[in-house]
Amino acid sequence: VALIERAQAGQPAAIGRLISRAEAGTAEAREALARIYQLAGRAHVIGITGVPGSGKSTLVGKLAEKLRKKGTKVGIVAIDPSSPYSGGAILGDRIRMTELATDPGVYIRSMATRGATGGMARAALDAVDILDVAGYQTIIIETVGVGQDEVEIARASHTTVVVSAPGLGDEIQAIKAGILEIADIHVVSKCDRSDANRTVTDLKQMLMLGLGDAPKSGWSIPVVGTSAISGEGLDDLVTAIGRHRSVAFDTESGRRRRIDIARFRLRKTAENLLLERFAQDIDACAAPLVEQLAGRTGDPYSLAEELLKLIAREETP
Amino acid sequence: VALIERAQAGQPAAIGRLISRAEAGTAEAREALARIYQLAGRAHVIGITGVPGSGKSTLVGKLAEKLRKKGTKVGIVAIDPSSPYSGGAILGDRIRMTELATDPGVYIRSMATRGATGGMARAALDAVDILDVAGYQTIIIETVGVGQDEVEIARASHTTVVVSAPGLGDEIQAIKAGILEIADIHVVSKCDRSDANRTVTDLKQMLMLGLGDAPKSGWSIPVVGTSAISGEGLDDLVTAIGRHRSVAFDTESGRRRRIDIARFRLRKTAENLLLERFAQDIDACAAPLVEQLAGRTGDPYSLAEELLKLIAREETP
Repeated sequence: VALIERAQAGQPAAIGRLISRAEAGTAEAREALARIYQLAGRAHVIGITGVPGSGKSTLVGKLAEKLRKKGTKVGIVAIDPSSPYSGGAILGDRIRMTELATDPGVYIRSMATRGATGGMARAALDAVDILDVAGYQTIIIETVGVGQDEVEIARASHTTVVVSAPGLGDEIQAIKAGILEIADIHVVSKCDRSDANRTVTDLKQMLMLGLGDAPKSGWSIPVVGTSAISGEGLDDLVTAIGRHRSVAFDTESGRRRRIDIARFRLRKTAENLLLERFAQDIDACAAPLVEQLAGRTGDPYSLAEELLKLIAREETP
Repeated sequence: VALIERAQAGQPAAIGRLISRAEAGTAEAREALARIYQLAGRAHVIGITGVPGSGKSTLVGKLAEKLRKKGTKVGIVAIDPSSPYSGGAILGDRIRMTELATDPGVYIRSMATRGATGGMARAALDAVDILDVAGYQTIIIETVGVGQDEVEIARASHTTVVVSAPGLGDEIQAIKAGILEIADIHVVSKCDRSDANRTVTDLKQMLMLGLGDAPKSGWSIPVVGTSAISGEGLDDLVTAIGRHRSVAFDTESGRRRRIDIARFRLRKTAENLLLERFAQDIDACAAPLVEQLAGRTGDPYSLAEELLKLIAREETP
């Protein structure tokens, strides 16, 4: 509790400790996180996603600088790709943000994508609440736009920004196509490049064809070209984000979005609890079933049913 | 049952229908898939993964051609990144494989990454079994090396090949670092490029430092440079895969790996069943809890506990 109060007073060490506890996701952490959830809810949460190489980390840095100039306190939760086995997060682009890191009005936290199913979404959204309670007014969640969990996290925000860049390879383009529809705002980065216009036109054409969710709510999805080199478009992006903030906070469609986020969060937290209990029980019950499966004397479906029955029997005394 | 027999006779339409049923994952499909599981187990399953832009799809095509020349029937299950919302798979590089597609000794199937948690792994491994039963002797599972599910699928094979390419961006390099440790065989593609040597040297150095799982089993992990343009290294890759086949099928460490795969598969199938039942129940119970969560009059942890209790009460009459 003292820790929460210190986080509320904006002490970075307390904020960091709480986020680490959220990442660890232990049963003891839950009481504090439950309390923080109920204290939070004021910040504008922006999800920023894009394929590898789209320049989204650079954009996040530039956007944070712009917001800082307006006096806004900015929290950044960056979900970094990491090894599912050794578990280490690779900081990569994060290093470029060191200028921001010395500004007390900015809090940057990298989180690794390892861990139990649904655990990353739960931990990331807990981290957003912690920053919210600590007084950060705009909180950016940055994820790489590959992987269902990553995309869902970027969508569990008030305003989702999808970053595209010109001139990426075929495979990257294919991945990109999968995330375009979640955008409230499109950014085309690297628009100092000559082929950026084409990317802008393609996106506008796609929007005219009525793809994406947002048109239903009366919000017209803007396509903003930005350049980290010339600074072009960054003010337009800040304006677009501000306009969408009003949609998110003051309209019926914003309220519905908040219900959707709550549903996603309840589902992820419950799934997490469910799988956690299951993982505790599986080691005790599974060994003979695994042998049968490896020997192909049983099949995955029947043995999975049997495993769930064994676990249920253990749980009900 | 007639469908299984027709698949066993190698009829492509029957194989395709069964894989579609595996993808749909309906309760009716399970009986057939359970039977197929017990009939399968002969094929050599190769997981091939690599970051976007590593050229793994091209490599898979070239490898399949080489194996075909040796008379091996080759099945390919390609997990394509796709939209988690609209659900369409984007074929992308798949189109390049059309030459192979006219060869009856090759079966290529693209699967989308949408669907319930764990569902993709379950469906992909069911598809491998279907191709196994249909007489394909080598089955390649190709996944993009981003996202925990994708990496786990590539690992749930007898032989895991990780494809690296020279000259990729920072962010891609960071993602790459996360998958190197799962390789039984490393491939450096595009080795006609002048900077490929550096990539080969880096990998060899990493292996000398003892990273990765395989050294423990006495298998010395090879680094094979390949070029899709000159054809260089493809024979070496076929040889390395053949040597690792012996490790996978004839050694104690291969047997342990098979147990690990069975454990992974049992866990994924059980998780899938668990989450599926949960999803069926959640709609009935969750609405008032979601309202509380959205209004922040409750917190995710307490409400998730409450949801699981409500569901448990519904299930036990």
